[in-house]
Amino acid sequence: MKTIDFWYEFASTYSYVSAMRIARVAADAGVAVRWRPFLLGPIFKELGWNDSPFNIYPAKGRYMWRDFTRVCDQAGLPLELPPVRFPQNGLKAARLALAGQQAGWSADFTRAVFMANYAERRDISDDATLRELLDRCDVDPDGAFEAANAPANKEALFVQTEEAKAKGIFGAPSFTVGKELFWGNDRLETAIAWAKG
Amino acid sequence: MKTIDFWYEFASTYSYVSAMRIARVAADAGVAVRWRPFLLGPIFKELGWNDSPFNIYPAKGRYMWRDFTRVCDQAGLPLELPPVRFPQNGLKAARLALAGQQAGWSADFTRAVFMANYAERRDISDDATLRELLDRCDVDPDGAFEAANAPANKEALFVQTEEAKAKGIFGAPSFTVGKELFWGNDRLETAIAWAKG
Repeated sequence: MKTIDFWYEFASTYSYVSAMRIARVAADAGVAVRWRPFLLGPIFKELGWNDSPFNIYPAKGRYMWRDFTRVCDQAGLPLELPPVRFPQNGLKAARLALAGQQAGWSADFTRAVFMANYAERRDISDDATLRELLDRCDVDPDGAFEAANAPANKEALFVQTEEAKAKGIFGAPSFTVGKELFWGNDRLETAIAWAKG
Repeated sequence: MKTIDFWYEFASTYSYVSAMRIARVAADAGVAVRWRPFLLGPIFKELGWNDSPFNIYPAKGRYMWRDFTRVCDQAGLPLELPPVRFPQNGLKAARLALAGQQAGWSADFTRAVFMANYAERRDISDDATLRELLDRCDVDPDGAFEAANAPANKEALFVQTEEAKAKGIFGAPSFTVGKELFWGNDRLETAIAWAKG
């Protein structure tokens, strides 16, 4: 089966939109999705940014929030802005999402985290929130946190972020089909079509 | 008639795609286009950039050229990369395009300049090139250059760039409908639909 890699960061606004859309768009095209959580922080740091570019460049930030609102509206997605300073810290959620890949609950958990951040005004860096979301996905929170915090899983997230960088990824969401890179929710359909071939 | 403002910079890659598409997309929707050349340089300078972000951030640059190639291909537009270092200096072309607005040759001239830059491998900062393009648009080059270099016209381009900044514009192409801002060739259809109301 043709496959697309979906690279996302839990703090990223437009990653929310793609995370909620990709399963259906890919299924319609007969394309399988590999869910690849990674961290934008280390990548931004290499670009010289210690914060989201949407905070560093206020004009870009103002525009993004307005555009993001229109895009969610057009996609029929609820949007309630996050309760804490943007961007939220998605490290714990990313470790959990990665830990859930073998057991197969990554996609469900990923959608739950994005909904919590952008539709339910929750703090996704908070353990209690994450435990509740795992529970909602029928995943045992104790086991999930244990797997997430295992040294091999922490290392795997580091390696995944390095792989993203090596593929030329500089933002999220991104999609890759082999060496072909697509950046941004606006490119989801193009990327799926490319995967379909 | 409903109107959309199309803000473009001659050095900008994706502005080329929008410049070649907007007349048809707008006409199909019954929307009039106001062609608004402006300069990104002063706006980038305020963001702390002395060069195109595609040069400052190599990963973004590599991606942009690949994506731009795919986008031109999808739009059926020829693409031959510019012969001089990107970005080209579009100051003279912008002054000319602005000077042509009363006489009504701005749109034709704008398309000719973008074609010269991205399809014909010409140096658009070169007077001889610009004179040839004016001639191709049935515009008298001497008169056009005189109008372009008049102090009032130079001032008008400065004012237009200030107006772009005041509208929150930080990149090109951008589209405005009243106070509503849309950024990027990907938003052309959404902006036209917004103008249509």
